[in-house]
Amino acid sequence: MVVMKEGASQAQVEAVAARVKDVGAQAHVSRGELVTVIGVIGDREHVGNLGLEAEPGVDHVVPISKPYKLASTQYKRGERTMVDIDGRRVGGPHFMTIAGPCTVESRESLLDTARTVRDAGAQLLRGGAYKPRTSPYSFQGLGEAGLRLLAEAKAETGLPIVTELIDVRHTEAVAEVADVIQIGARNMQNYGLLTEAGRTGVPVLLKRGLSSTIEDLLMAAEYVLKEGNENVILCERGIRTFETAYRFTLDLLAVPVLQEQTHLPVIVDPSHAAGRRDLVEPMSLAAAAAGADGIIVETHPEPERAICDGPQALRAEHFADYLRRLEQAAALAGKELQAV
Amino acid sequence: MVVMKEGASQAQVEAVAARVKDVGAQAHVSRGELVTVIGVIGDREHVGNLGLEAEPGVDHVVPISKPYKLASTQYKRGERTMVDIDGRRVGGPHFMTIAGPCTVESRESLLDTARTVRDAGAQLLRGGAYKPRTSPYSFQGLGEAGLRLLAEAKAETGLPIVTELIDVRHTEAVAEVADVIQIGARNMQNYGLLTEAGRTGVPVLLKRGLSSTIEDLLMAAEYVLKEGNENVILCERGIRTFETAYRFTLDLLAVPVLQEQTHLPVIVDPSHAAGRRDLVEPMSLAAAAAGADGIIVETHPEPERAICDGPQALRAEHFADYLRRLEQAAALAGKELQAV
Amino acid sequence: MVVMKEGASQAQVEAVAARVKDVGAQAHVSRGELVTVIGVIGDREHVGNLGLEAEPGVDHVVPISKPYKLASTQYKRGERTMVDIDGRRVGGPHFMTIAGPCTVESRESLLDTARTVRDAGAQLLRGGAYKPRTSPYSFQGLGEAGLRLLAEAKAETGLPIVTELIDVRHTEAVAEVADVIQIGARNMQNYGLLTEAGRTGVPVLLKRGLSSTIEDLLMAAEYVLKEGNENVILCERGIRTFETAYRFTLDLLAVPVLQEQTHLPVIVDPSHAAGRRDLVEPMSLAAAAAGADGIIVETHPEPERAICDGPQALRAEHFADYLRRLEQAAALAGKELQAV
Amino acid sequence: MVVMKEGASQAQVEAVAARVKDVGAQAHVSRGELVTVIGVIGDREHVGNLGLEAEPGVDHVVPISKPYKLASTQYKRGERTMVDIDGRRVGGPHFMTIAGPCTVESRESLLDTARTVRDAGAQLLRGGAYKPRTSPYSFQGLGEAGLRLLAEAKAETGLPIVTELIDVRHTEAVAEVADVIQIGARNMQNYGLLTEAGRTGVPVLLKRGLSSTIEDLLMAAEYVLKEGNENVILCERGIRTFETAYRFTLDLLAVPVLQEQTHLPVIVDPSHAAGRRDLVEPMSLAAAAAGADGIIVETHPEPERAICDGPQALRAEHFADYLRRLEQAAALAGKELQAV
Repeated sequence: MVVMKEGASQAQVEAVAARVKDVGAQAHVSRGELVTVIGVIGDREHVGNLGLEAEPGVDHVVPISKPYKLASTQYKRGERTMVDIDGRRVGGPHFMTIAGPCTVESRESLLDTARTVRDAGAQLLRGGAYKPRTSPYSFQGLGEAGLRLLAEAKAETGLPIVTELIDVRHTEAVAEVADVIQIGARNMQNYGLLTEAGRTGVPVLLKRGLSSTIEDLLMAAEYVLKEGNENVILCERGIRTFETAYRFTLDLLAVPVLQEQTHLPVIVDPSHAAGRRDLVEPMSLAAAAAGADGIIVETHPEPERAICDGPQALRAEHFADYLRRLEQAAALAGKELQAV
Repeated sequence: MVVMKEGASQAQVEAVAARVKDVGAQAHVSRGELVTVIGVIGDREHVGNLGLEAEPGVDHVVPISKPYKLASTQYKRGERTMVDIDGRRVGGPHFMTIAGPCTVESRESLLDTARTVRDAGAQLLRGGAYKPRTSPYSFQGLGEAGLRLLAEAKAETGLPIVTELIDVRHTEAVAEVADVIQIGARNMQNYGLLTEAGRTGVPVLLKRGLSSTIEDLLMAAEYVLKEGNENVILCERGIRTFETAYRFTLDLLAVPVLQEQTHLPVIVDPSHAAGRRDLVEPMSLAAAAAGADGIIVETHPEPERAICDGPQALRAEHFADYLRRLEQAAALAGKELQAV
Repeated sequence: MVVMKEGASQAQVEAVAARVKDVGAQAHVSRGELVTVIGVIGDREHVGNLGLEAEPGVDHVVPISKPYKLASTQYKRGERTMVDIDGRRVGGPHFMTIAGPCTVESRESLLDTARTVRDAGAQLLRGGAYKPRTSPYSFQGLGEAGLRLLAEAKAETGLPIVTELIDVRHTEAVAEVADVIQIGARNMQNYGLLTEAGRTGVPVLLKRGLSSTIEDLLMAAEYVLKEGNENVILCERGIRTFETAYRFTLDLLAVPVLQEQTHLPVIVDPSHAAGRRDLVEPMSLAAAAAGADGIIVETHPEPERAICDGPQALRAEHFADYLRRLEQAAALAGKELQAV
Repeated sequence: MVVMKEGASQAQVEAVAARVKDVGAQAHVSRGELVTVIGVIGDREHVGNLGLEAEPGVDHVVPISKPYKLASTQYKRGERTMVDIDGRRVGGPHFMTIAGPCTVESRESLLDTARTVRDAGAQLLRGGAYKPRTSPYSFQGLGEAGLRLLAEAKAETGLPIVTELIDVRHTEAVAEVADVIQIGARNMQNYGLLTEAGRTGVPVLLKRGLSSTIEDLLMAAEYVLKEGNENVILCERGIRTFETAYRFTLDLLAVPVLQEQTHLPVIVDPSHAAGRRDLVEPMSLAAAAAGADGIIVETHPEPERAICDGPQALRAEHFADYLRRLEQAAALAGKELQAV
């Protein structure tokens, strides 16, 4: 949809229409009292490449059709995608809980956490072996040793593993251990990484970038989907705004709006947005009540001793209670925590 | 707390300390390996006026104490303010529901809505007689005639009235009818208006400005409180961010963070942030689950015919069901809807 | 322009078209392969009131025509408004410089500043008698005594006065002294104030709110213009973003974009955005080079002793040099500082 | 600097001090009338890992020292880094101009542009062989064929080449052709990529992420610098804000603030922020007048036929004039365009 400036000449309108037709699209001119609008029907890419915004007489261009295809609700004709991870499901009526430490630190602490969250009823175990850190001087994760510990925790507890992929060169190693590959917020637009993650066939948990729009997130999902990997789980984890009283602003409106625009499940990470343990539970309940399809949350047996993000980790001893309240909140939105 | 630049000279440190002592405050100098820091203890206003940020050698100034006093949790030593409006309470364990049309349109439609929301269990009736509108060509409200209709609706239904004050010249007329005076987001820093609202002694519902921080909001509340009016209710209603998929971004982290920093009740307006009816319920449940002290929501018997903000108004016929689910969400956070 | 959802039914399309016609507007339906779009031609207000966003089958509504009229470039058919203040002009080829203290503090300091900025070549004197302050405990200005000092400074130096109006009850007193009435960022959407300022007939300097869009600013200008007051000067002064390294983010793209959309002059306030003296000059030169129609800047004979905003005030002794460089930057954009 | 809550107990203060001492740092307790503050002197990483924010009685933690080291002004004791690219310098008094197409499209069009920008006086040629694109359906660049064309353009014109690296697997191929490796905004926190770019020893042009703070950008630079690569050029290219009237908000305050905090050169990309050709020149002049160390700008012989970002490309035929005006703006800030 091309909106012409007030006062655009007939010749300018015709020039735009001609360029549109050049690429095989149709142009429908409607003249209003003040403004002339040219409706364009055709391939979005081709028309977008014309750069009509810069044509003389053009005021602005409004894209009408959505730029994503495979991620859209229409693509599956309204059916919801339910991702099945070793018998645990997320999406549709299924509410999923993923818990564990920010980063894998030691065998003992990981196994301890894994048993606690399993016994409390969590369905997947999260833990970072590779950590993207703002500072090059921060601990960057245990790497392959961390992956081995995650494999051990899975063998021991039966919990499927969610772990982050941050570098295309680690794809094979991560895919071997991970039941879900996490793509972090900083890498949401790392297209090589999205493509490689897509190719593994392993389900992908895709976190929203901290200044990414809903549409950006769905376009990033499209990179995974187009590799034939249909198991994408989206995750809202807070966006950057002017407010400095908390780390990020958790954007829960994104939950129902995403669920309207895409068939993919949408979960929430309350830990990173809040940055503080006491805010994690209220935000978890809020996310579940808003209709989220699940939660990914950090827990630690002794947060004071955590190497990374201790202040936002739930204490393992409170985790079972937390999960009970979360279940009630999810029920309000018609979702059920699956008994494992 | 004054942080000096690396490499600041001894003379610069002393000059800052001298200026601090000039206004009767104390200066404690601590020298780190890289940076020297000067702790300042004294009156925040006096020290702030020194403009130390611009002294030679100063890197930045970090205020440690909070700038608000009467609004702070410490001021009431942890006790929660419960505002009582004609027997309806908000704050502490009490969850309050305020409902009604965006704007007062006609006698019939207002009375109709008032009866519906009362019968469903809402505690207060909202309705705008004076409307702040972005466009001078939009309907600006019925004014005094609107106030008279609100008075009639109160007489008829017994519901106390929440209505907005947008101009100091209307203070008396609004205060006569209003049981709660609303100060809208656009006027959150209209200090004359805050002061006049404070002086009426009528409880004040203060909405967060669309780019106001938590601290700005509490400073605005301070303007009302300092007039001796202790009945201030804060309201989160969405902030402006880069996301354009919805009108505003509802910032629910503000709820528990405000409740930590202030003794005042904190409610949420899901209608204005969402801008769309189908998003109002998920955001209402989320707000209640996050621990909000209440909700203010728009309802209309026939939203298609509403003069203003129809698309975001709940249908009156669904309101009783909505309220039942809201009650359950509030219960999760330990709050109770009061039977009236 | 109403964009229907993919899969919207024929009946839904017809229902929307029928509602549009109900209010006397025209509806043109164009069916694309995926999406149906309904072009609506008619009164923007009437159509806007229909709330079509909430009709079944509607995806979203895109307004095509601009909501402001008197402020638009089209309204004056491309002619630029030049505001004339006692022989000093701003707009078109004329670059205007406004300087003075943040707030009027004392007779001596005001007169001292006034003489310095006049001798350096500034054209107008700014100074606040009424100050909107975030904290109720901050100095709120000298009020009427401040206005009297401004009148005296004008009598003494011949400089016209720019001073802020913050309360409708001060309108008459301020209009008597002010050659330009400033509406501050916090009051940009205080519609009663805009209307009263418009009615005085005195030129109005309208600052952009800290989270106001270009369109919001032009709608606010419309409130002044519709009172028959054509002398409105717009002012960019920094917006709120996630960046905390400076007070506000100065948005210089707003300058050429505003100049394209409106005939009104656009000036820049570099002092409030930067918050620090050493950033004021680079931002002033940048604003002038970007094509701004003028600058409003804070100066103080002894910033260390300023009651308010001292850290951002230019030292009076450097002001003449500053103005010379500013003149060169303005010349790059084809603007001239007027010799007085 | 740990700020305790009002009312924190003596035991809580001592517990915090004890944990600080545990990691070998010092704790200085200062008791104010209302608030107790604990100054901590020691290794930032170790102290940061304690997660003191979550200790009982702690209100918040304020980091005083900067987290970056090699990038800081102090590290080079005030000396400016001047990056020398084949005899062309940027930084200190040297203003650098980089121009060329968004993406390499064809031999003819690239050579044509290269000759034009060289003849006009530009110092480096930019052009993308690998393009990060929001949509997987958009043209992703010519890849290695594009690199070969860039090498040919360099051989033909003598202009050094700036081209983007988006995937660690392309590092060797890109480093062979590039005289400057560009890291784009989307990859600013792709730490593997930063490290690999650092290791090549080739100068790195690092673009600010669209929601990255000044500090984030300097931390990203630190990843390159710590590999022993001292030739890093920073680039402001617009940030994401609520304003939708332009693509991004160009943040020119970042220029002088970065120049204060780091010794690295800071250039500006006006093309991507503006998104429209007619806004590129005003923003370029503004950037130069604000003291930027250079500009990177898109030009195209025939923007209407550009595959990518045509609307924002300067027309090659106007480029020489543009450069002359840019030279004057840079001169205002004391910078000189180098004759080649």
